[in-house]
Amino acid sequence: MSARELRVAAIGYSFMGRAHSNAWRNVGAFHPDLPAVTQQVLVGRDESAVRGAAHQLGWREWATDWRDVVTRDDVDVVDVCTPGHLHHEIALAALRAGKHVVVEKPLTNTIDQSVELVAAAQEARSRGVRSMVGFNYRCVPALALAREVIAEGRIGEVRQVRASYLQDWLVDPDAPMTWRLRKEQAGSGVLGDLGSHVVDQVRFLLDDEIASASGRLETFVGSRPGPAGPEDVTVDDAAWALLGTGRGAVVSLEVSRMAAGRKNALQIEVYGSRGSVAFDLERLNELWVDTGQGRTRVLVTEPDHPHLAAWWPPGHVLGWDHTFTTQAAGFLSAIASGVDPAPSFEDGLAVQRVLDAIERSAVAGRGTVELARS
Amino acid sequence: MSARELRVAAIGYSFMGRAHSNAWRNVGAFHPDLPAVTQQVLVGRDESAVRGAAHQLGWREWATDWRDVVTRDDVDVVDVCTPGHLHHEIALAALRAGKHVVVEKPLTNTIDQSVELVAAAQEARSRGVRSMVGFNYRCVPALALAREVIAEGRIGEVRQVRASYLQDWLVDPDAPMTWRLRKEQAGSGVLGDLGSHVVDQVRFLLDDEIASASGRLETFVGSRPGPAGPEDVTVDDAAWALLGTGRGAVVSLEVSRMAAGRKNALQIEVYGSRGSVAFDLERLNELWVDTGQGRTRVLVTEPDHPHLAAWWPPGHVLGWDHTFTTQAAGFLSAIASGVDPAPSFEDGLAVQRVLDAIERSAVAGRGTVELARS
Amino acid sequence: MSARELRVAAIGYSFMGRAHSNAWRNVGAFHPDLPAVTQQVLVGRDESAVRGAAHQLGWREWATDWRDVVTRDDVDVVDVCTPGHLHHEIALAALRAGKHVVVEKPLTNTIDQSVELVAAAQEARSRGVRSMVGFNYRCVPALALAREVIAEGRIGEVRQVRASYLQDWLVDPDAPMTWRLRKEQAGSGVLGDLGSHVVDQVRFLLDDEIASASGRLETFVGSRPGPAGPEDVTVDDAAWALLGTGRGAVVSLEVSRMAAGRKNALQIEVYGSRGSVAFDLERLNELWVDTGQGRTRVLVTEPDHPHLAAWWPPGHVLGWDHTFTTQAAGFLSAIASGVDPAPSFEDGLAVQRVLDAIERSAVAGRGTVELARS
Amino acid sequence: MSARELRVAAIGYSFMGRAHSNAWRNVGAFHPDLPAVTQQVLVGRDESAVRGAAHQLGWREWATDWRDVVTRDDVDVVDVCTPGHLHHEIALAALRAGKHVVVEKPLTNTIDQSVELVAAAQEARSRGVRSMVGFNYRCVPALALAREVIAEGRIGEVRQVRASYLQDWLVDPDAPMTWRLRKEQAGSGVLGDLGSHVVDQVRFLLDDEIASASGRLETFVGSRPGPAGPEDVTVDDAAWALLGTGRGAVVSLEVSRMAAGRKNALQIEVYGSRGSVAFDLERLNELWVDTGQGRTRVLVTEPDHPHLAAWWPPGHVLGWDHTFTTQAAGFLSAIASGVDPAPSFEDGLAVQRVLDAIERSAVAGRGTVELARS
Repeated sequence: MSARELRVAAIGYSFMGRAHSNAWRNVGAFHPDLPAVTQQVLVGRDESAVRGAAHQLGWREWATDWRDVVTRDDVDVVDVCTPGHLHHEIALAALRAGKHVVVEKPLTNTIDQSVELVAAAQEARSRGVRSMVGFNYRCVPALALAREVIAEGRIGEVRQVRASYLQDWLVDPDAPMTWRLRKEQAGSGVLGDLGSHVVDQVRFLLDDEIASASGRLETFVGSRPGPAGPEDVTVDDAAWALLGTGRGAVVSLEVSRMAAGRKNALQIEVYGSRGSVAFDLERLNELWVDTGQGRTRVLVTEPDHPHLAAWWPPGHVLGWDHTFTTQAAGFLSAIASGVDPAPSFEDGLAVQRVLDAIERSAVAGRGTVELARS
Repeated sequence: MSARELRVAAIGYSFMGRAHSNAWRNVGAFHPDLPAVTQQVLVGRDESAVRGAAHQLGWREWATDWRDVVTRDDVDVVDVCTPGHLHHEIALAALRAGKHVVVEKPLTNTIDQSVELVAAAQEARSRGVRSMVGFNYRCVPALALAREVIAEGRIGEVRQVRASYLQDWLVDPDAPMTWRLRKEQAGSGVLGDLGSHVVDQVRFLLDDEIASASGRLETFVGSRPGPAGPEDVTVDDAAWALLGTGRGAVVSLEVSRMAAGRKNALQIEVYGSRGSVAFDLERLNELWVDTGQGRTRVLVTEPDHPHLAAWWPPGHVLGWDHTFTTQAAGFLSAIASGVDPAPSFEDGLAVQRVLDAIERSAVAGRGTVELARS
Repeated sequence: MSARELRVAAIGYSFMGRAHSNAWRNVGAFHPDLPAVTQQVLVGRDESAVRGAAHQLGWREWATDWRDVVTRDDVDVVDVCTPGHLHHEIALAALRAGKHVVVEKPLTNTIDQSVELVAAAQEARSRGVRSMVGFNYRCVPALALAREVIAEGRIGEVRQVRASYLQDWLVDPDAPMTWRLRKEQAGSGVLGDLGSHVVDQVRFLLDDEIASASGRLETFVGSRPGPAGPEDVTVDDAAWALLGTGRGAVVSLEVSRMAAGRKNALQIEVYGSRGSVAFDLERLNELWVDTGQGRTRVLVTEPDHPHLAAWWPPGHVLGWDHTFTTQAAGFLSAIASGVDPAPSFEDGLAVQRVLDAIERSAVAGRGTVELARS
Repeated sequence: MSARELRVAAIGYSFMGRAHSNAWRNVGAFHPDLPAVTQQVLVGRDESAVRGAAHQLGWREWATDWRDVVTRDDVDVVDVCTPGHLHHEIALAALRAGKHVVVEKPLTNTIDQSVELVAAAQEARSRGVRSMVGFNYRCVPALALAREVIAEGRIGEVRQVRASYLQDWLVDPDAPMTWRLRKEQAGSGVLGDLGSHVVDQVRFLLDDEIASASGRLETFVGSRPGPAGPEDVTVDDAAWALLGTGRGAVVSLEVSRMAAGRKNALQIEVYGSRGSVAFDLERLNELWVDTGQGRTRVLVTEPDHPHLAAWWPPGHVLGWDHTFTTQAAGFLSAIASGVDPAPSFEDGLAVQRVLDAIERSAVAGRGTVELARS
């Protein structure tokens, strides 16, 4: 494995696969001092489709069996973009083969699998093998700046967080059934899908752990048109939680796929003893900071803002996909420097434990669930 | 009692007394077709202060004992603006004397007292005596328009409500102790103060009742400098609740006096099956409506918008105090027409029952509390 | 004339008359330390209408001939709210009778008349008689704060100002003809009506004079349905100007009654060598300030903000009509202190000279017109 | 030349060269049905620098003399990203060699050169050779949607346009001298740099030509620290214009590099007889549309919005650089379909004629300059 060139294999080429491919294709142009990336091989089960995707997305080769690929000598990095139920097996094999591994969130679909992956990552770490889970919103410059503002104490001690992630693509009760609404396939509804981003982001911003949770899940549209007539929706359409952090902040969380008019609204407000910050993903280049003189809209595009030096002049805004390029750069940088990238598999597991506590509270009528210290 | 002139006695002249006096002084200028108002007498315990206030605020006379005033022949309306613990006794006496009664929220400080007042109001109603509790935000034109939008079905069936009321006047941990932070005097903290507005507004907007509640209360600053050294704060600084409505909507509620940078932010978002509305009291002339084509900012200042015909041309915005003038007009109109004004004492009681359920849930570890059908 | 009580006569009771009456009725309640106001007499030509208006708006008496009223012994202040073509004659008579005079803007309809009024005001001033022209937007707290921010040098030396006042009540080409669109009656179109506010505000904010102007006038809808068929519109629907100030700033001005969707949008942005401020009258409680760290939304409702001490707690926003109450307070305060109030008749004349220069430039094909030093 | 693969040579690798390289590198991944792009060769004068840039930005080869490159058989497209004074010579040679040509704006630095290029492009067009000038903001989805809204008549007949482009990178008077502030090198100041974008955009949105212009130029900081002491700034820091369109709309234009707090604020408001649209480049994923019921914020990220089908799901916002990828796709599509792409060299020339008229008006004291029909 050369420190100057890293050959990547990506498993999966649908939504997340496209976003990750885009990152690998572009990271070198914006981060010339990092190890160069070769898009070595794209893996998918459907030969015709993966061939076309490889050609389109900039990969040298394609393959149909990830098992063959993760042990190849000409592969240094394995990027897992499959559905969640395959993460465990692929990542385990890749780590054992000594490959650096990126796993798109969620780390796995079950806590048991994640516990195993964490153990494998820890073992691999001792051999210099790096691993990361993909919570790309940590790479939004405005959120990274928010973390800095909080860490520097500019808003004082954090007391209250209002965090929500609202979309509306299921608002129509006649929208058809999909696998995402079947528990046995999707594992979870909006709590796992969007709630995981919120929980990770809160942990990231506050640099604090979630210590307790209470929650509620709701399915507003209980049945949808399926291939064989009406079919039960078996996951949550919306979820709410109150979380307590280790240092005593209280976090209210609300996620929904039913919030008419909200397209991709990850909104976070953090209130401290001396000020506050606020963010909305639909305006991802902006951070609101209030330290006592009014609410200041910071256009987070200056070269001294986090992650911005690599990009364009002030005021030339970034989009959603740039977060993945920044994430890839962070991973490459960690490999080159011989340090462990963040967020780690442990972070992925910690998020899952919180979501699990929320679900358990919801089932039990919303009482508080304490999380064990990990 | 003449239908053409109504003589008002107001009890109290601090913050709410000033706001109510302002309304009585101005209502006739904007509503010439309603019965004329005479600001007959202002009541307060401190003779020198009440004399000065009466002169300043436009009252003909002043008095120091409300008991004498509520039975006077030259008084038709009693307006109760005292602290909450006096509401019960004054309102009861006024109703029994056959006076129309307005009580500033909260109706009383205890559910038992409110139950008694409701009974007295119902009895008086049969004699043509009118009563109202003062939730002035029902008179914000944008919120009244939101209620219309929802009632007309333009956003479909309501599923989710995000409601919060955030202020920051206690954010500084060194701010001194006040009677508002002592449970024995204030009865409640932010939940009663701001939460009551939120609960009433949700009931108003949705025309629906709260059927269940779970909640949490938090005191972030447990001790503050008092007159005799550090003193315990015995009420809540912030509160959260999840409410279920009779028709199945879920409401998340968050109130705080610690939300740095928020001055008077009553924010409500209502999500339905076909659209949504959103409001922020800091921009009280605006309503956001989304029925599928984007978020529309409606400047609620057109003559055909609720309550606006009485005021100024389009774009000439109203302020916070105008809501009290509109509230007074509604009360006068109800008296003139011989109908019962809204919100009623029953509404005041219903709000208290919800707050009580939230508190009980909080004490019991956040489990769900079902509200009895009233 | 008592320093402790001032008896006011108002001439006119339509839109501006209502707004001024509202101010006289309320100023004492918010400014108890100023001389008390008695709403002595309201004047209008139509006896039945003025009687009704006097009753409704809080005046003790009514009268139909202003000539009788302006010399009455029981009148201390004359408030001129008539159409512009009557301002000159009434104000002149009142000043000569030794009455303090407020004239709603525009000072008069012609420069010659205004020159005469200024001379009369100067003469009266030597006798302790006060006069003021009513540019109420000087009393918007956010704009008064903007002036402070600029005066303190917080945005550095002012270079560029973008100023516009956009409404849309004439956007429909089928809206009927009115006297406001006939030059012989209205004197001017939107330039005089809205442009005058903009010019005064720029002078106020910058504490600087306009030294040169170039401009353009446009009538987009040249003919409208009149009582006897189509009738020519003889005033401007929209106007533009570039102004140079004495200290070298450049001001772009745009006013329109045709800006679809803008209801009352007086928008001003001032750019200096170190920062900027921005304001929109549709959100009149907010000022945007940028001094290098981002755009800060200041909710201008704190007790230490200009004009706010008299009103409500932080976050309890003001409306459009409160500006007139503040304006009345300023006038009373000047009388009580024996100083001259602002804006003066000289200010009214200065604004007219700028508008006149814009019109002359427009007629002459937009070349620059230099204003004489007054 | 194959319709299935196009080999590109780019001349220049600084700011615009990076942005164009980014587009060529990515266009295939988002537009698989268009001809494939090969990044064949990057050209620059400094051998070491161009070699590094070629490697970083994804080019197969590098070269130092554009003359050799524009005639190469393995080059199908020449992309001119040099400073403006070189555009004419390079584009002319490339067109004569039968290469499709993209020229970054401005088309050239002089009208004479642009007239020549237009003639060359017209001649080449007859041979099937395509040419385009790079006004990338035509590819902002929200602006393309605005053009559709206007073209469909949804805001009626356009009357007024408020257009500005404000930046602040020269606000500090001590910022050092650069070649951009020397007329002999830069040709023009902010009028040419930012004003050209505004003029093109107005023509694009309205599908109308500019028929007359009046204007003003201003240099606020006349001297800056140069390498040999204070040096005169010989271009404009800010510029204003009033434009009349062929169909009778009036456009106010303001551009500045001195607008403290504005980073990249291309703001356009178009007012018609039935509605309006508004846009701000700092929030490039949003369009405001008002057709009579309020101002609607459209998040322009839906698959049926212009240019969006190629990108991400709703709410996953785009950034500034995506406009170049869309622009490249449009160019490839035109080549593949055998039609002429837009904006054409004629568009580039038309913009320059407007800027020239503004300058001539400014020099002559702001009188109106009529533009000849081209």
